Amino acid sequence: MGKVKISKVVMIGAGNLASHLAPAIKNAGFDLVQVYSRTELSASRLGNLLGCSFTSLKSEIRKDGDIYIFALADDAVEGFFDGSSLSGRIVVHTSGSLDMGLLAGLSGTFGVLYPVQTFSKEREVDFKQIPVCIEASDETTKQVLFDFAGKLSSKLYFLNTVQRRKLHVAAVFACNFVNHLYTVSSEILGSEDLPFDLIHPLIRETANKINDLPPYVAQTGPAARNDQLTIKKHLDLLSFFPQYKRIYELMTEDIISSGKKNR
Amino acid sequence: MGKVKISKVVMIGAGNLASHLAPAIKNAGFDLVQVYSRTELSASRLGNLLGCSFTSLKSEIRKDGDIYIFALADDAVEGFFDGSSLSGRIVVHTSGSLDMGLLAGLSGTFGVLYPVQTFSKEREVDFKQIPVCIEASDETTKQVLFDFAGKLSSKLYFLNTVQRRKLHVAAVFACNFVNHLYTVSSEILGSEDLPFDLIHPLIRETANKINDLPPYVAQTGPAARNDQLTIKKHLDLLSFFPQYKRIYELMTEDIISSGKKNR
Repeated sequence: MGKVKISKVVMIGAGNLASHLAPAIKNAGFDLVQVYSRTELSASRLGNLLGCSFTSLKSEIRKDGDIYIFALADDAVEGFFDGSSLSGRIVVHTSGSLDMGLLAGLSGTFGVLYPVQTFSKEREVDFKQIPVCIEASDETTKQVLFDFAGKLSSKLYFLNTVQRRKLHVAAVFACNFVNHLYTVSSEILGSEDLPFDLIHPLIRETANKINDLPPYVAQTGPAARNDQLTIKKHLDLLSFFPQYKRIYELMTEDIISSGKKNR
Repeated sequence: MGKVKISKVVMIGAGNLASHLAPAIKNAGFDLVQVYSRTELSASRLGNLLGCSFTSLKSEIRKDGDIYIFALADDAVEGFFDGSSLSGRIVVHTSGSLDMGLLAGLSGTFGVLYPVQTFSKEREVDFKQIPVCIEASDETTKQVLFDFAGKLSSKLYFLNTVQRRKLHVAAVFACNFVNHLYTVSSEILGSEDLPFDLIHPLIRETANKINDLPPYVAQTGPAARNDQLTIKKHLDLLSFFPQYKRIYELMTEDIISSGKKNR
């Protein structure tokens, strides 16, 4: 490959991740030349926001990008360019779960840039603070991706596919499932017309605690104390929410058994 | 009762909650006259820290307190003073689950001060920011407790027993179960020698997001997208952690079904 320096960036996708990643790329001084989205509206919205060209037609995707970043749902990445080639370009995806090799048919130089964060269009995030996990087809590409990602974030990691996948599962537990527990919690509060605000300080402190304490040390509550009296009361209260009762039972059982393990 | 003003405070307990509540009471200018704990070591540690007397003998608990605050495990509160009386004093417990009336045998004036927070001895918290839920045997006591708690926290709520119990269950989901998911997450990372730090920014952002977005709107991830391809991969990876696999399945199922409900 010789010396590769990334200048022109093509963003494939305009969803939650792309709408945070594309501005970060632009702000880092790269030339964001095009945004693609399957839907015209999403493509134009993000393209116009960033003052770059956009398209919703695969055939109109520019061929002169230095790097193509796939920020699509996993099932949309596979077979995205059937038969096309971006030979000589760097192609990367941003998925926690997909094989890196998936992109090998497009170009000999490929890789992964997986940002470990939850993105919603409605919320700003500081990209500099987001860990970005890098995987690459070869050493040269690895270095190029390292330099590129280093302009976006100050926290870079080299992870192989197995590590990245495990990390992704871990992130599902620590983010997606955690957020769902917030939803469950807010519904239980709602059933008594109590405001969700009431537990905001608790949620913040629970998240902040793990900066100082390993989570198994930070564990509190009826299950950690094996307080069967309270657990029984809670299960009775949850009879109106059978699915939440199942979650309560399973989590409680697991907290009690990991308490025994760590003792 | 006439005009009651709290000055002398007796703290019954020296555990996680008591070790935060007692200093907050002292710092608010009240006269913390005694700390009781079942174990001499805990009693002396907290007593000495706050420069007040302490005991591990129930019979030596002073009778001249204006308020007695029970910060014990739920099963230790019930039947704590068998046959004794603190007639004319205010007695409160701090539990999310216990009946207020449990203390009626001790004194005609009783109540609850339930702080909605997770407390570990190793971590400082700003008590002023902690919501405190108040319940009282009568209007006078209610006002006295309101004035007292208002010196400790700026966030006071009047909740009845049913509301308090529901809140406690909600807190178990949003704090205890959330923290356990952090533990699960850190174990999965550990299985690949990945540092837990990698997901700290994710954990923080997940907790902060709900300041701006209702949690069901903030939901992201494979289950929220009903991305069966990724879910299948994750379940395969979790075959080494059968219990975590069960949690994954149940949470995923519930996220998918609440997605359908909210659509």
